[in-house]
Amino acid sequence: MNTPSAPGAAPLPIDLLICPEWIIPIEPARITLSRHAVAVNDGRIVALLPCDEALLRFRPRKTMNLPGQVLLPGLVNLHTHAAMSLLRGYADDLPLMRWLSERIWPAESRYSGLEFVQAGTLLACAEMVRGGITTFNDMYFFPDAAAAAARQIGMRAVLGIVVIEFPTSYAADADDYLTKGLAVRDALGDDPLLSFCLAPHAPYTVSDRTFSNIATLAAQLEIPVHVHLHETDHEIDESLKQHGVRPIERLRRLGLLGPQLIAVHAVHLEPGEIDLLSHEACHLAHCSTSNLKLGSGIPPMSVIQSHGINFGLGTDGAASNNRLDLFQEMRHAALLAKGANRNAEVLDAHTTLAAATLGGARALGLDGRIGSLLPGKAADLCAVRLDEWLIQPCFDPASHLVYVAGREQVTHTWVAGKLVMSNGVPQQFDVSELRDITGLWHTRLTS
Amino acid sequence: MNTPSAPGAAPLPIDLLICPEWIIPIEPARITLSRHAVAVNDGRIVALLPCDEALLRFRPRKTMNLPGQVLLPGLVNLHTHAAMSLLRGYADDLPLMRWLSERIWPAESRYSGLEFVQAGTLLACAEMVRGGITTFNDMYFFPDAAAAAARQIGMRAVLGIVVIEFPTSYAADADDYLTKGLAVRDALGDDPLLSFCLAPHAPYTVSDRTFSNIATLAAQLEIPVHVHLHETDHEIDESLKQHGVRPIERLRRLGLLGPQLIAVHAVHLEPGEIDLLSHEACHLAHCSTSNLKLGSGIPPMSVIQSHGINFGLGTDGAASNNRLDLFQEMRHAALLAKGANRNAEVLDAHTTLAAATLGGARALGLDGRIGSLLPGKAADLCAVRLDEWLIQPCFDPASHLVYVAGREQVTHTWVAGKLVMSNGVPQQFDVSELRDITGLWHTRLTS
Repeated sequence: MNTPSAPGAAPLPIDLLICPEWIIPIEPARITLSRHAVAVNDGRIVALLPCDEALLRFRPRKTMNLPGQVLLPGLVNLHTHAAMSLLRGYADDLPLMRWLSERIWPAESRYSGLEFVQAGTLLACAEMVRGGITTFNDMYFFPDAAAAAARQIGMRAVLGIVVIEFPTSYAADADDYLTKGLAVRDALGDDPLLSFCLAPHAPYTVSDRTFSNIATLAAQLEIPVHVHLHETDHEIDESLKQHGVRPIERLRRLGLLGPQLIAVHAVHLEPGEIDLLSHEACHLAHCSTSNLKLGSGIPPMSVIQSHGINFGLGTDGAASNNRLDLFQEMRHAALLAKGANRNAEVLDAHTTLAAATLGGARALGLDGRIGSLLPGKAADLCAVRLDEWLIQPCFDPASHLVYVAGREQVTHTWVAGKLVMSNGVPQQFDVSELRDITGLWHTRLTS
Repeated sequence: MNTPSAPGAAPLPIDLLICPEWIIPIEPARITLSRHAVAVNDGRIVALLPCDEALLRFRPRKTMNLPGQVLLPGLVNLHTHAAMSLLRGYADDLPLMRWLSERIWPAESRYSGLEFVQAGTLLACAEMVRGGITTFNDMYFFPDAAAAAARQIGMRAVLGIVVIEFPTSYAADADDYLTKGLAVRDALGDDPLLSFCLAPHAPYTVSDRTFSNIATLAAQLEIPVHVHLHETDHEIDESLKQHGVRPIERLRRLGLLGPQLIAVHAVHLEPGEIDLLSHEACHLAHCSTSNLKLGSGIPPMSVIQSHGINFGLGTDGAASNNRLDLFQEMRHAALLAKGANRNAEVLDAHTTLAAATLGGARALGLDGRIGSLLPGKAADLCAVRLDEWLIQPCFDPASHLVYVAGREQVTHTWVAGKLVMSNGVPQQFDVSELRDITGLWHTRLTS
């Protein structure tokens, strides 16, 4: 687990040595280490090794002892619409299509613009780093504004090159969406914290022609495709009416299935579709809270898992969740899989932690860089205190992370070795400004 | 909503006036008040009235202005095994019967005693008041020790007169359990914060004879009966084998069905059973997290609700949850009902808040004293701040309580007008002691 060094060599200067009570590295899988440290230099993990050894091998510029805390990879939010945090609780207790057409789309068409996206994404990123999330995969308009917000907070972002057939204040038609998204990629592609994903909205809002273009682009650019898929029965019924096949089969015919595809939701799957997604090595973004809240249903996670399909966890937007909290998503994913399958052994704690980290990273093609604490990967980390009185006693830190702790117990979040949140407070942005920003938007949205 | 007073009368001295940003009184149903105050005297709610008017009518010894906060009735935890908080996370990812027989029962038989119950209940009560819970309905051994712990924290407790056929360190046989429980009731029944419930453990651990005795006692003493019922398929199968009928029918024949019955879990119900529970005016304790975590299943809450069956929410014990958090239970109940029924309109925010307060109070026969903010009821209250930056914006406080806020946002909890928790800290007990207590039990349980 550590890079070799000659015995007796002089201690190596490094930026940071973190010595928590426990470390859950995700790779190797299903282990919890005690008396170990993570050595960080130049934004990367240099070594994961016993504390005693670390003190001999390294001369850290800074050492952080974190007694009572567990260190793990930063969480990866595999599906969100970050800017929609301004619509948190704007409409509840409505099914997806009414919620979209009666409440969300009208508000978006009236208010969504550059300023809305930057403000909303800023709030979302601050909320996410507060809860140990270091990477998010976004699908929204004005990805340049989302990128600016992510940079303000210091988060790693995968920006969706969003495509939808109808015009918005952002773009006029599908080609225009693609052109604008690709221009943002050209402009920002060099930022090591930013990457891109093609993001056709959904089968019911994107044409065959556009899907085909996206398949071609994904192959040319070697970037993932991120699409809402089989979220509701309604979506599937409409596809059968309009295209004669269910959406997954339609996407297969259009060349979209493959290891570059992230199927978001995937609530309603027939056995043959699970086989197909497995055979094509597609990834799933499981958004349990949103699926429940919109009444979409419960995906067959036990079967998905037994078919070896890689999956990560997503919060979806704050308008349908209503918090961007992967601790909540881990808990809901683990609990729901057990309850829906009447099998308490499905999605155990370690499996769920891996989904919330490495599973998301793999889906995004970023598992070489993030998602576990292997040396060489970026130092995207979070520390969680498990020693607060109200969550005692603690017999197993992995179980405690999934079934007991909340994001309120996250004490530190690092992205590429940089501390972006400490003791509840984002470090690179004055969150007191967020109250003014959200106050302003609250007034606009209720006027 | 307020008690009358003559116009121009001198201001009435009262103990406390609370002026929050919003009040959700639960009765009247489904409303959120702004610029209102709750007047408290001698442990009771004297009036709920506009702030301006309150300042004229009352001369409070103490006034608490709570800007950005919502005040609501204290939450009622309708089913728990409080002392089991010492077994939080002791065993996970196992189905109910293996979890009980391989892990929980052996640990309990080795460790459970007076000291275990008092320590565990102390931890549980501290955790509960931290999260706005003011009343809990307990089912565990040594109810005298549980009562002592509840008194130390200042909580309202409904103590289970637990009955099980097999011997434990607490009692030798069913009659012995009843005798001991009734003796505790005789000794402590005068405490206005304590009441009692007959608590036969479950159909698979209690005989027909004992159930019959309990039916007789419940009628004589006019106290509720609190029993695990239709929690798993296994329980129902065993009942069919041993008694030829499902447990609900068995309890009907034994005279247990009626408005005094609190059926805990009730996951697996046939249509005729729902009709029967409705017709007999039984109450349900819905424990969504525990039902999911143990793989027991998902109860048909939509049908239960449409049949007008009263239900409250329970955390169950911390060994199967793993937190005693009714904010989590509200969220899980609301989300799960929507997802399982594919209907986002089921269990909306106000309905869920009512279940977590008045629903529980009704089941316990305490709705004349707690569960809503009607004048005359005890001042069991909690205040929740909705102005933290990371949960902005807030369009609807009721929605925010169910879908956004967490127990970490609870700032104050009052029981009978007494402040038992303020800013995260229980007021009547030094919680730093809890670390020593839980540390000791952690060592014992892992040795």
